[in-house]
Amino acid sequence: MSLSLLEQLIEALRVLPGVGQKTAQRMAYQLLEREREGGRRLAAILDVALEQIGHCTQCRDFTESERCAICANSSRDQQLLCAVESPADRLAIEQATGYRGLYFILQGRLSPLDGIGPRELGLDALSARLAEGEVTELIIATNPTVEGEATAHYLAQLARQQGVHASRLTHGVPLGGELEYVDRGTLSHAFGTRSEMPL
Amino acid sequence: MSLSLLEQLIEALRVLPGVGQKTAQRMAYQLLEREREGGRRLAAILDVALEQIGHCTQCRDFTESERCAICANSSRDQQLLCAVESPADRLAIEQATGYRGLYFILQGRLSPLDGIGPRELGLDALSARLAEGEVTELIIATNPTVEGEATAHYLAQLARQQGVHASRLTHGVPLGGELEYVDRGTLSHAFGTRSEMPL
Repeated sequence: MSLSLLEQLIEALRVLPGVGQKTAQRMAYQLLEREREGGRRLAAILDVALEQIGHCTQCRDFTESERCAICANSSRDQQLLCAVESPADRLAIEQATGYRGLYFILQGRLSPLDGIGPRELGLDALSARLAEGEVTELIIATNPTVEGEATAHYLAQLARQQGVHASRLTHGVPLGGELEYVDRGTLSHAFGTRSEMPL
Repeated sequence: MSLSLLEQLIEALRVLPGVGQKTAQRMAYQLLEREREGGRRLAAILDVALEQIGHCTQCRDFTESERCAICANSSRDQQLLCAVESPADRLAIEQATGYRGLYFILQGRLSPLDGIGPRELGLDALSARLAEGEVTELIIATNPTVEGEATAHYLAQLARQQGVHASRLTHGVPLGGELEYVDRGTLSHAFGTRSEMPL
């Protein structure tokens, strides 16, 4: 027997992270009962967004333009570059700190076992950008996990090869956590007291 | 400044129940990073489902056909009718019990303050159906809340007027629970209606 439209909708909703069978059911019923208009809007924007949102050619963040709003903003400090693992991390820093420099989104972390090396993180582009000489400090804000730390060391070496100062967020960020979920006060403090990357 | 597509997507996702700003962000990033295909499928089915899913003309459940699969199934017992508040309740009963009769979905409960009266629950249609004489028992499975109980009493009267037997789910201590954590009302009721222990 083929699935009914309702069953197909419930199944499709499970693509969302953290949404299982029961939650998907609740969502489907809620949309059908009370939120048809909002649901239609969601369908439309989802379609357009997935079609049109690509990566910023400069920082690899998600954007529908060639360059994201931050990279395109000439009033940001062009000498500071902050490397983060994901757009969510960038957003967390942007919301918690007064940082006015630019970002570089790795879209991952070095993880040889998963086949994620320097190429997948766009480190050739990063290296070329540091070689241009405008950036004076690379603020390394990868997650305080084992892979994040390894990535940080790699990035620090890369920066020094180009004569760029490399700094790292102060420990104070709890080990084993994800930046996205750190409270703002802690994140802001760690960002403000970033220190020289040890060799 | 107008919202970026990403911000619009995050905003649109918040229409889903239980999804706040942070969860919507996570969903948007997840879709963009890893689930573009699934996201497109969701957008497409969401659009079609909201357009085409209406109510079964017989039981008021959600369906894209004129009659839902259960009402259209002639092997179900046409003499038993179970009244529930929502499609989710119907699904719970369908999954948990061996019930083989039909349903009537109220799509709500009597709530005069919110302007929900017998008309909004389709009770004229229910009354007409009971009057046809095929149904012999109306199983009232509204929720055990104040409004659900009021609705149950109203439905019981309706059934009696048409000479149809009305029954109600038993109240009592849930199976597998601990007495210590059962609410007082339930415990008091279960204690008062205790029955002879079978040998």
